[in-house]
Amino acid sequence: MKPEITIIYCTQCKWLLRAGWMAQELLQTFETEIAGVKLQPGTGGIYEVWIDAEQVFSFKTSRRFPQPKELKRLIRDIIAPEKDLGHNDRGI
Amino acid sequence: MKPEITIIYCTQCKWLLRAGWMAQELLQTFETEIAGVKLQPGTGGIYEVWIDAEQVFSFKTSRRFPQPKELKRLIRDIIAPEKDLGHNDRGI
Repeated sequence: MKPEITIIYCTQCKWLLRAGWMAQELLQTFETEIAGVKLQPGTGGIYEVWIDAEQVFSFKTSRRFPQPKELKRLIRDIIAPEKDLGHNDRGI
Repeated sequence: MKPEITIIYCTQCKWLLRAGWMAQELLQTFETEIAGVKLQPGTGGIYEVWIDAEQVFSFKTSRRFPQPKELKRLIRDIIAPEKDLGHNDRGI
């Protein structure tokens, strides 16, 4: 079964747009490897990225937002280690 | 339990962008009424909108794409009949 990615974002902080942008980045890169990306409203400064039941990024822990390149490498290393991310998202 | 909306879109037809746009429209309007919106890649000209296990829109049946206003009224009538959609999305 393909994994599902969830992005939980803070509605009070108006983070829907950046969450929506990141969802589309991930769907473009992992089009065939994931079951989908769920955008989930939250509150209180939350911005987290999960693969199924595993949290892979948290704003509260990192005190910053993930760049697409960084998040794609994190996700790739878990769900498709052999996948080449291409010149856009390869090196950090 | 809040309902989850799923938008299944055709990757071959490059319909991610319109699906991503619609997801953000729905999340903005139904911020407190839904558990989230899942964007799900598909193929073969698919563009469907589901509320949990109930299909509420299908491109294959309608032969066109839903306007936000129309889709919001469809969803509102099912998940929050008493909700006023505001001047933007009220009248058809």
